This record gives sequence, structure tokens and C-alpha cells, in this order.
Amino acid sequence: MTFQAAGSLLFSPFPLRGLLLPNRVVLPAMVTRLSGEDGLVNADIRDRYLRHARGEPGLMVLEAMGVHHAKSGPLLRASDDRFVPGLRELARAVHDSSPTKVAAQIIHFLKISRSGWRQRIQDLPREEIPRIVEDYGAAAARIRDAGFDAVELHMAHAYTLSSFLSRRNDRHDAFGGRSIENRLRAPSMVLRRVRERVGPDFPVGVRFDGEEAIKDGYSVADAALMAVRFAQLGADYLSISAGGKFEDAIHHPGEPLYPYTGYSGDRCMPSAGYPDGLNVYLAEGIRGALRERGLATPVVATGKIRTPELAESVLRSGRADLVGMARQLLADPDWPKKVREGRSATIVPCVYNNVCKALDERFHRVRCTLWRRMDLHAPEPPQDATAPVWPEGAALGADEHDGRVRLEWTPAVDAHGVYGYMVLRAEGSGPFLHVDSARGVAHRYEDASALGGIAYRYQVVAYDMAGNRSPPLGPASVTLGPFDG
Amino acid sequence: MTFQAAGSLLFSPFPLRGLLLPNRVVLPAMVTRLSGEDGLVNADIRDRYLRHARGEPGLMVLEAMGVHHAKSGPLLRASDDRFVPGLRELARAVHDSSPTKVAAQIIHFLKISRSGWRQRIQDLPREEIPRIVEDYGAAAARIRDAGFDAVELHMAHAYTLSSFLSRRNDRHDAFGGRSIENRLRAPSMVLRRVRERVGPDFPVGVRFDGEEAIKDGYSVADAALMAVRFAQLGADYLSISAGGKFEDAIHHPGEPLYPYTGYSGDRCMPSAGYPDGLNVYLAEGIRGALRERGLATPVVATGKIRTPELAESVLRSGRADLVGMARQLLADPDWPKKVREGRSATIVPCVYNNVCKALDERFHRVRCTLWRRMDLHAPEPPQDATAPVWPEGAALGADEHDGRVRLEWTPAVDAHGVYGYMVLRAEGSGPFLHVDSARGVAHRYEDASALGGIAYRYQVVAYDMAGNRSPPLGPASVTLGPFDG
Repeated sequence: MTFQAAGSLLFSPFPLRGLLLPNRVVLPAMVTRLSGEDGLVNADIRDRYLRHARGEPGLMVLEAMGVHHAKSGPLLRASDDRFVPGLRELARAVHDSSPTKVAAQIIHFLKISRSGWRQRIQDLPREEIPRIVEDYGAAAARIRDAGFDAVELHMAHAYTLSSFLSRRNDRHDAFGGRSIENRLRAPSMVLRRVRERVGPDFPVGVRFDGEEAIKDGYSVADAALMAVRFAQLGADYLSISAGGKFEDAIHHPGEPLYPYTGYSGDRCMPSAGYPDGLNVYLAEGIRGALRERGLATPVVATGKIRTPELAESVLRSGRADLVGMARQLLADPDWPKKVREGRSATIVPCVYNNVCKALDERFHRVRCTLWRRMDLHAPEPPQDATAPVWPEGAALGADEHDGRVRLEWTPAVDAHGVYGYMVLRAEGSGPFLHVDSARGVAHRYEDASALGGIAYRYQVVAYDMAGNRSPPLGPASVTLGPFDG
Repeated sequence: MTFQAAGSLLFSPFPLRGLLLPNRVVLPAMVTRLSGEDGLVNADIRDRYLRHARGEPGLMVLEAMGVHHAKSGPLLRASDDRFVPGLRELARAVHDSSPTKVAAQIIHFLKISRSGWRQRIQDLPREEIPRIVEDYGAAAARIRDAGFDAVELHMAHAYTLSSFLSRRNDRHDAFGGRSIENRLRAPSMVLRRVRERVGPDFPVGVRFDGEEAIKDGYSVADAALMAVRFAQLGADYLSISAGGKFEDAIHHPGEPLYPYTGYSGDRCMPSAGYPDGLNVYLAEGIRGALRERGLATPVVATGKIRTPELAESVLRSGRADLVGMARQLLADPDWPKKVREGRSATIVPCVYNNVCKALDERFHRVRCTLWRRMDLHAPEPPQDATAPVWPEGAALGADEHDGRVRLEWTPAVDAHGVYGYMVLRAEGSGPFLHVDSARGVAHRYEDASALGGIAYRYQVVAYDMAGNRSPPLGPASVTLGPFDG
């Protein structure tokens, strides 16, 4: 069951306008809330990205940095030359320690307030648009000066350029929603200006939504046209996200609107109940539209892609050229390295319970629920080839409680400490599949997705920080009573 | 380009518990608002469904009929024996005039008021559940008595059984949202009771959402488990819808909440901007989960499937067993017959502008925007083999206006009258593709999805009521100025 990296597309180098990515795994920009209000690179930011770099993804995109000066809590900035030294130091440290190429995402957003009010795209005075275009160009030039390998323009989710692209853009001028050409005007100006400022040889990517996932929003038919425009203007890659909009966000009194609280937020960061790779069809539709027109711009698919098998199949089937994974690389930054080295059996799988998203929503520093409590980074795997073991007489118990299966087990033992437990489930005589994980301190689990009348068998596997896995404990069998009303 | 029905799966008969569907095209239940407040079959209802039957889909599902007595405007009823004679007459008329098999969908819904208030599933007293179960059973028995070929249980969208299934089910009892088993309890009781009432040999289908498409709603992981349960309880087919929920509906003051006004409504009846077949992955995931468990229950895929080529490919690739199309069969009820007879080139294609949906939302009788103005039914194709022609000197003009392309053309001429115009567009030297249609009285069209800098060519094709098509008029060429800011 170990993924064979040799001969895979996933671990073939990928050329990107003069840049050679060592593999086709992309870490998309992910909010961390680790920076200070000053917008400067600090130790936590540095540690987070150097940790990611040690896992050796092909391309790592640093979290969105403001191109303008609006106040916005902890947010990296590229809005002034004084931010360059810190960024340069970070880019150099990545290059010194890893083959990973490093891009920075740059962002502009409109104003929001704690009252729930937000500036809409139709409220943006037309005379401010040239300023935004210039700010993007200047920020991109700083990213290049700072020694990054590429710059990525944030045109996705709830931010200014995405709001221009939106079908909900209700402006009545030449930047308005009455035609796709008008909706594309400001983003096109930005991309052209960025290209002018960074020169012809510096990779420029665009991240945008393949579908807004809001009422009356756009889907892949419009996104394909946007991709054509970006390709014509010389974008070097297109990274496809979904949703993350203000229009369906839920307002919590006294807090600014958070654009990932509605269904569009669920589609942006799909949780466990969604199928793997659910947004790949967006990248596929966009890539097909480009190729039909003879445009070769690479497309990055993202959205709940967690296994090397799925990632490889997305590439092999021509649905995308690169594969992005954010939450899986948060859970286990060593994913690329482990897969390349034939250690895919030691990946710590993301469980998609979106604790990371909930932390962001509450303006807390973003962590993974599988990390050790309070840690700000994924653990550093120790030199350790010894898997956790079960003590003599260890047992796994399973019983029914209010329609759910309740598991309880004896803690495992490991010299370096048990990092977590994987819960596996089989139906009847079928195979055991990973259904969820629990942190090492937990010895209990509840399964709310068991059907009555089916004989389930459960196992629990303990793993340590190097990803070494114990033999399975169990199985424990349980059959919920059939419904009877 | 004509679809070959001979040898296709689409036009192979399909066995359904003793029933033999003549083909694999399903007309899903679609609201008409044609019935009166009395709940009885009237002339408009009869005419609508006999019109559909003349098109010869394999299975036709009549619009949802109430199993209970709540007031709800124009809605067919199966809640009392006095509704049986009208239903019997309609079923017999279908059988007398068409090989189409006919099912009736039965529904229970909770209370809503013009204030925007709605009864939530957690507000439903537990002691009322057995009554709902009995009402479903009794209504199903009446459907059988009335001579229908099958009964379909409405467990989709915003209605009672779907609200039990929902991840947003917030009940705290054994019918509550804390486990999938609890969420399935009432729908399972209904299905079992219906089976008891109709006997072992009468086909029972279930229509339910493969994804709720609302924040914190369920997706295909849960839907697959629901499918397993329904299959175990002997459902004869599962018809997969999406969305259509109250949770994201928009309240218009003074009107009861309409559950298709949010994004979940867009996903239920996807408009032109969405890709064709966008919800097929739900049927595919559910069917795969069934087959893995050795369950052979047929699955119906629906959602913007309009061409015989796509329908056939969905069947061939094993993503579904039957293909449903609602709006395409509203636009052209003769679709199945035309395709079977090698006349797919005369199909009137649905343009997915959702005028039908808007009419329903405003409580008007549901019509198709492509039909002749004020008609309550698709026109009866006359015996007519003569296509419309363009008069001497006819011309198609194209110019730019505010980022859009404006087309204008000379009206075509037809002995029986021009029914409509299809607008085709090509990029550069590429193929002409149908982008939209206009009714026969219109001679103008605006294209808001043209990109600047691309040379477009347009054609217009006139068609008559038999679907005969004129030669293309044009091309008219236009290139929007490139954006320049």
C-alpha cells in the first residue's frame, strides 16, 4: 500500500517560467494569525514556514500579505519597503534549508467593521482603483526584491479582486457586473501592472475561485473565461479555490464579518462529511477550457486532497497540473518528504474536523488539532524507528449510546510519547478504513455515523511523532440495534 | 451529430421490481402550481402530464402530493380517498396514451407562515411522528389503488423527512441529530410502513438530497449511509437531488419562506452558469457505496443533464442507472421520443435561465420561457417538415455596448410560425456552440460573457414548433476592445 514516488508525476519536477519545482505538491497560502499587528515577519512566522519547508513541498505559498495600509490585526505586509528585510531573511532561510520554491501571496481587501458593516465593491470609489493597481504592482516588486521565487495574486474568496470578479459585483461603471469583461477589468489591470513591475522572467500566479458557492454567484463557466484572460496576460499558474465569501457569512454581534462562516466557507475548507477532492472538477473544467484554446497555463487543484494516490490520479487524468493541499500539510508538513521516501504509511492524516478554521474564525493563532496541546507547530519527528506498543492486557471496548458507538481503549506506550490514535472501522468482513483520529491524550471516541443492523468492527492504531504505528488493537465488534420506532 | 438510440443504454428497457421501464429517462417530480386549492386533479394538471407522456419518458413522476391535510395553496393531495378517482383517471389516461410508466411523489411538510416563521423539525412533537408515518402509508396505498405504477417518497429539500435526515436536525430525542441512526429513524419508519401498505410487489422510490448544500449540512458521505438504509428496507430506486433548503432561504416580508432562494436552491436547479451534470458526482458516490456493499438498488442522477450524449455517458460510466431531467423535459417534453427516433437535432434545448423557478417562487403557474407567451403547456408539434427560412436580404448585426455584444437580426419566416431562435457563438476559427435561445418574437440578444480581445463569430438559427431548424444566419463577427482601464 506504500505509494511509489519513483516514476510518479507527483514527484516529477515541474518547470514554471524558468523555475523548476522539485515536485508537484503545492502548499497553498493559509492564514496563520502568527504575525504581529506590525506586519513584520516574526519568529513564529519564520518557524512555521521553515517547518513546512523541511517537508519539501514543490512550491510553498506564504500567507496573504497586505499590499495596502489598512488596519487588519495580525497580517503580514508587503505595502512598504520596510517589510522587505524580514521577508528577504525568511526567503533566504527557506532556500538555505530546503529545495522548496517559495512564493508570497499578496492581497487587497475592503473595509469591514465590528458592527457587521462592510464596504462592498460597489462602494469603492472608481478613483481608488488605480491606487490598488499600483499597490499590487509595488508589492509584487518587493516580493521579487526580497528573493522570493514567485508572487501569487489573491483573487479568491471575499477580497477586493474576487469581489470585482463576482457575479454579485453590482457596480454600474466599466468595472461593474453587467458583463464579464467589466468584472475582469480591475483584476486584469492588476495582473498587467504586476507583470510590468516584476519583469518577464518572474513567475506570477493567480489564485481565484472556480465557483463562488453563493446564491447567484459564478461557477466554472465564468471561471474558465477568467482563466483565459489571466493566461493571455501571462499568468504562470492558476490556483483554483472555491467559496469563502462575505455574502453568506454569519455576523456575530461585536465582531467583524468572517467570510468562511457560511456554506461557501464549508466549500472553501470542506470538512469530513464532504468527499475527497470535491472541488477538483473546477480545476478540471478550467484546465479543459484553457487547453481547448491552446493555452498551456498550469492549473493547481485544491480541496481535500490528502492521499498521494488521489493526488497522482488527479495529475494522471489530466484534471490538473499541480496539486495543492493546505490542511493536510498543516497536519503533517512532512507529507511530501515521507511520500517521496516511500514512507507514506507514516503520514499523519488530516481528519478535516476544521479546528484550524474555527481558530482562525475566533482570531486565534491557527494550529492543528492533532498537534500536541498548545504547540504552535507540528512536532519535529525524532530519530525514532520504534513504534508504540500496547501494554499487556490492553483492550478496546465498544458499546452503544444514544445511536452512537462509544469506544474506549487502554493507552499505548512509546519511548518518545504517543502522538495520536487512528480509529479504523470495518463493516462486516470488509476492510478496515481510517474514520477519524484522536490526540494521544485521549482514550475515547464516539462514532455518530454507524448504521443500525450492520456489524461493525473497530480497531485503534497508536502512532508516535515519527509516524511509527503500533499494531492494531482490537477488533471490538458492535452492532447497533436496528431502528424500531 | 445525431444520437444513435439503437444500442444505447439510455433506450434499453429497465426492469424495476416487476415493472419494465421502456427507457432510462426519468421525469422527476416538478412543481406546476396548476392544481387548485382543493387538491384535486384538474384539466390543467391532466393536460400537463399527458403532454409529458406523449414524449414517452421511461418513468414520469407526478408532482408532490400531500399525505396530510395542512393548507398549502395549490397542491395535489393523496390524503383522503376522495382524491383517488381523479388520480385514477389520470393514471389510466397516461397508460392509454403512452408507454411511459407513471409514479406519484408523496410529501409531508411542516408549517410555515407569511411572517417568515417556520416550524422546525425540533418543534415537531414526538407524538405526531406516528401519525406522519401512517399518513405516508395510507397515501402510498391510495397511489397504488389509483393505478399508478410506483410511489416515490419525497425525502429531499426542505420537507419533513429531509429535515429529519439533515445534519441540522437539532432534536434531542431518538429522532434527533446526534447520530445518523437517529436522523434516519423517522424516514426509515415511513419507508417500512409504506412497504407494508403497498405490498412486496409495488415499486417504491425515494428521492433525497445527495448534499444539502447549506452550512453544516450533510454531503455524500452521509447520503451514502442513508442510501444503504433505504436499500436495506427495500427501496426500488433512489433518486438523487441536492439542496433546496430553508436554512439559507431568503425571506421576503409578507410571504412564506420559499426554500429555493438561497445557494442551495441554485444547486437544486442550477442555472446556465453551472456546468452540465454538476450533481452527478452525488449519484456516483451513492451508487458506489451501495455496490461496494452488494446492494443493487438503481440510482437516478439529476441536475442539468440535457443532451443524450451526456445522459448516455453517465449510464455507460456506471455513475447512475437512470437519468432524470426536469427542466429539459419542461422545455421539450418530446425529448425522449425525438432522441429515440433519431431526431435529436430537433430538440428544443433548455437554456437554464430558471424563469420556471422564478414563477414557482412567485406562486405563479410554472411555464417554460421558451414556450409561446401565456401558453400553459409546450406546443404540440404540427405535422411539419418545412424549416423556417430567412427572407431575402436577411442580416445579423453585432456591435459592442458596455462590455456586452448586442445582436440584432431580421425575423425568419415559417408557415406555422417561428417558435424560437438559437444563438450560436464561435471563438476565432473554432466550432459554433449554442449559447442561449430567444423566443420567436425576439430579434435581439445581448451576450454578457464575451471576452475582450477575442474574435467572436455569431450565428442565429430559427426553429419552428416541430423543431425544424433554418440554416444559420450570419456569421456576424465582433471583437470587444481589450480592457485598458
